[in-house]
Amino acid sequence: MSRDLILSRADLEFLLHDWLHVEELTNRKRFAEHSRETIDAVLELAADLATEQFAPHNKRNDAEEPRFEQVDGVGYARLHPEVGPALATAAEAGLLSATMDAEVGGLQLPHVVGIAVAAWFQAANPGTWAYAMLTVANANLLVAHGSPEQVRAFVPPMLEGRFHGTMCLSEPQAGSSLADITTRAEPRPDGTHRMFGSKMWISGGDHELGENIVHLVLAKIPGGGPGVRGISLFLVPKYLLDADGAVGERNDVTLVGLNHKMGYRGTVNTLLAFGDGTVTPGGEAGAVGYLVGSPGSGLAAMFHMMNEARIAVGAGAAALAYTGFLKSLDYARTRPQGRPAGAKDPSAPMVPIVRHADVRRMLLAQKAYAEGALALILYCGRLVDEERTAGDAAARERAHLLLETLTPIAKSWPSQWGLEANTLAIQVHGGYGYTREYDVEQHYRDNRLNPIHEGTHGIQAADLLGRKVVMNGGAGFTALRETVTATVARAEEAGGLAATCGAALRQATDRLVEVTALVHTCPHPEDRLANAAVYLEAAGHIVLAWIWLEQLLAVQERDDDFANGKRAAARYFFRFELPTVGPRLDLLAAGDRTVLDTAPDWL
Amino acid sequence: MSRDLILSRADLEFLLHDWLHVEELTNRKRFAEHSRETIDAVLELAADLATEQFAPHNKRNDAEEPRFEQVDGVGYARLHPEVGPALATAAEAGLLSATMDAEVGGLQLPHVVGIAVAAWFQAANPGTWAYAMLTVANANLLVAHGSPEQVRAFVPPMLEGRFHGTMCLSEPQAGSSLADITTRAEPRPDGTHRMFGSKMWISGGDHELGENIVHLVLAKIPGGGPGVRGISLFLVPKYLLDADGAVGERNDVTLVGLNHKMGYRGTVNTLLAFGDGTVTPGGEAGAVGYLVGSPGSGLAAMFHMMNEARIAVGAGAAALAYTGFLKSLDYARTRPQGRPAGAKDPSAPMVPIVRHADVRRMLLAQKAYAEGALALILYCGRLVDEERTAGDAAARERAHLLLETLTPIAKSWPSQWGLEANTLAIQVHGGYGYTREYDVEQHYRDNRLNPIHEGTHGIQAADLLGRKVVMNGGAGFTALRETVTATVARAEEAGGLAATCGAALRQATDRLVEVTALVHTCPHPEDRLANAAVYLEAAGHIVLAWIWLEQLLAVQERDDDFANGKRAAARYFFRFELPTVGPRLDLLAAGDRTVLDTAPDWL
Repeated sequence: MSRDLILSRADLEFLLHDWLHVEELTNRKRFAEHSRETIDAVLELAADLATEQFAPHNKRNDAEEPRFEQVDGVGYARLHPEVGPALATAAEAGLLSATMDAEVGGLQLPHVVGIAVAAWFQAANPGTWAYAMLTVANANLLVAHGSPEQVRAFVPPMLEGRFHGTMCLSEPQAGSSLADITTRAEPRPDGTHRMFGSKMWISGGDHELGENIVHLVLAKIPGGGPGVRGISLFLVPKYLLDADGAVGERNDVTLVGLNHKMGYRGTVNTLLAFGDGTVTPGGEAGAVGYLVGSPGSGLAAMFHMMNEARIAVGAGAAALAYTGFLKSLDYARTRPQGRPAGAKDPSAPMVPIVRHADVRRMLLAQKAYAEGALALILYCGRLVDEERTAGDAAARERAHLLLETLTPIAKSWPSQWGLEANTLAIQVHGGYGYTREYDVEQHYRDNRLNPIHEGTHGIQAADLLGRKVVMNGGAGFTALRETVTATVARAEEAGGLAATCGAALRQATDRLVEVTALVHTCPHPEDRLANAAVYLEAAGHIVLAWIWLEQLLAVQERDDDFANGKRAAARYFFRFELPTVGPRLDLLAAGDRTVLDTAPDWL
Repeated sequence: MSRDLILSRADLEFLLHDWLHVEELTNRKRFAEHSRETIDAVLELAADLATEQFAPHNKRNDAEEPRFEQVDGVGYARLHPEVGPALATAAEAGLLSATMDAEVGGLQLPHVVGIAVAAWFQAANPGTWAYAMLTVANANLLVAHGSPEQVRAFVPPMLEGRFHGTMCLSEPQAGSSLADITTRAEPRPDGTHRMFGSKMWISGGDHELGENIVHLVLAKIPGGGPGVRGISLFLVPKYLLDADGAVGERNDVTLVGLNHKMGYRGTVNTLLAFGDGTVTPGGEAGAVGYLVGSPGSGLAAMFHMMNEARIAVGAGAAALAYTGFLKSLDYARTRPQGRPAGAKDPSAPMVPIVRHADVRRMLLAQKAYAEGALALILYCGRLVDEERTAGDAAARERAHLLLETLTPIAKSWPSQWGLEANTLAIQVHGGYGYTREYDVEQHYRDNRLNPIHEGTHGIQAADLLGRKVVMNGGAGFTALRETVTATVARAEEAGGLAATCGAALRQATDRLVEVTALVHTCPHPEDRLANAAVYLEAAGHIVLAWIWLEQLLAVQERDDDFANGKRAAARYFFRFELPTVGPRLDLLAAGDRTVLDTAPDWL
């Protein structure tokens, strides 16, 4: 497959350089070793590896999904044989540690560049890339919260691709409701813990890709606080390390079964048992676990990672939307079918379907969703860098607040509209798009996961309306409003299409501010949050309109196909999409009680 | 599986009897043998067979999809072994011919009842039921357009389940653009034709369910008119019949390959070769075909069937939406997770998720889509009966016009929003819904076919805006407007919620009428139809609001959970859905040129 069908290098270059001025980051100490050249080189490398090592087995890793096998009473997951070698090339190229500290072996690239690097793999083969993504998230969390010994023992092998990582949060009875987990960690005199419980939906929970798997596990220490305050974080390796750090005895973490998913099949998803007695490490019951951070701080540590994971989910959704768009555009340009409406001569040659207005509508919508989503994600990545490395504390704080506020939108909006892009990609292909002989049906199935994992759509909605827009006295929401307003001011100055779009965005933003205040006059949280999903979707569309206005301004000086394409997509977004916000905000302003007043027995 | 998770008997009873007064049809001569009792009995029978014979293998027929095998150089499709016996029970019960004339062995039930009967099977197992549906459509077409000999030879064995039927329209290079088919039918002196060409996307194109397969094939007779006027219809059996009507020599229709679909996997979908020389019937090249009707009338005959097929597609989409709704409702009532927003005590027991407002929102939306779609489809079924059996010619003509106008909406709206219902059904299930261990992911995959086959969403849009609303000087559109207005008048009289909804619907309808006229002031068809899909979606939502207002009025006198549920869903539709029509109509009124003015090279 051509890499031009995976992502657009021209668009990435535009977004990273022309719009976000990523090169400026290299003036900062952390990124001083880098330059535009090194940034572009690592992106080229990612594009090459994604195209050559990851894309080719994307369909096979879906069709031939991981299998469960039992050997001597112990369960094992068997992955597709092409997964391991592909991951090894990415690890060897240093891409797993692209953004990490040089001190632990990382390339210390800006986070925004790391997101762009990952996007190539997420578009080419999300099922295989997930093993790398989970491992990197795991390593990042250990670096932030683990002891120096834990970091030394586990992080370097992860970045080299020898160890892999998982995040073990959910349990069969506790998914969104983490307060209700029951996995317990019993302290032992030597400072270790013994873990007992079941963990559900664990991606990468078992395989033999490398030498070891590092599970980061949320559990409760008996006698700890109630609810989420009683949750601690533990490192539980599949194989214990001996005194020299070499892989030794098997720990009591075992594979109970696999979940068979609609999509994302290449990523093994498991039910794991901790301490069910399959093996008894050191002759004692329970899986050996090592406390990470302090008791009771497990959820906070996990959420440190979770915010970045949510942006990564949004990035994955955007990447799938993007590749689906490129593939359907390619199809539309080459598939002849029918004649223009009103053309009467049936013997005239057929035209490529991109000539039909309705097909262009579906392509423009995909372009608006995919490029808009990717731009939002990269903007958030830029905020991560700002939050960490901006020169003054006020700028760091402002970036932090803005990022916190945008995170539920960065997770949800690409997940919702990226899926919509993929359904349009299928539709452009007609019957062919519905078959597994083409790629787009897999993108659609894979993308359907994204509104569910790492906090469902509903969880993001409650987070945005219930927490983010009111935190710190509304400081994050204010920062967002000011940011949007500054763009609008520039647009009004620019005139033309930008000014028209700016005026519409100003009006929508003012209305959002008004409605946000109105909703928070409602005293009871259950009433206030009843239509949170409607709020999330309205706010999301307004944020994306702002992202499109930003892009419009960034091509202001250009007059070429690329710039005209950005203008067309921006116009599409402002004409077809932004106006849908009006009725949603009216519903919220009216304090609609339809959902609240519906009794479960009526349904 | 309980049949209460397939469809709701209470709702069917409400829609058919309380709302559509189907029993009144039994006063007409054609249905005089029937009564409420016989109608209810056949529906009970359908529910039983769907539950006991079809639902149990729905997942297996997806997981173990049809296989391609070659024996002595001839391709064969091998179906799941549970498909044949299930279809046989439906045929034995007489359900294939439920609505057909007693003369050909049918039960002569009203068409609206036939749709309700089929809905049970479409919800329980669409992959298996499709073989029956195609066979019935084929038999109906032959009864309407075939010669008496053709009917005698082929229809009774089809209704008995011994022969099956297909519709062969598309070719690899001609899908939506039927004018471009190249399959040719060469006349022979004995009045038969010899067929040469490839047909693509042929559902049920090969299998060994019975003794024979009756292909109805669109082809061109050399020297015929250009474009669609040169298309004729042929009957091409897989096995030729001997003089006594017994199955004899193999015809040259052979299976080239299977399409591997995302969903609807239980229905084999094929590429067929006609006359490629695999066999030479009677020692001569070409597949033997028999002209149905007159030369050049092929497309008209096929469209006779196609209109009913489009309503059947909408019915299938509604049925899948419905079963997904019932399953996610059942899950939401039994799955404990979390506590109400604002509840602070983490040791309080968890509540079933139906108690969370956001989950009720997703259930209400599904209810509004699924019950609304089913109601629309049954209304259309009632119009078919009216068109055929109403006492006076004016009523028949009016029903005909209304049905023609509603058909693109009846096909598209359930396909679009039924899919949306299914994505919400997955979302209610959380991670579980994304696994093949639960049913809803299959419903979602299956339902994704519906906006594609039997005329894509875009084709329906062009049909509605380009033909249906303007045909006969706008008579169909006027009939629709008058029908809606009459309901609004009743609603205004009824007062309360109905009057409020009625006022909103009156306003939306007036605006639709205005915008329809405005769009048609645009002289060039390409410009006029550029935003046809937006028009289809706006008109669809207005029609569904009317359907919900009708249901609201029909429960006016009741005060029970069922009636309160209908009220809640109607309120949901009017508060959350109908207002989205405003921006769509504004876009159309503005004659938006975004799509038209976007050059293919800009994308």
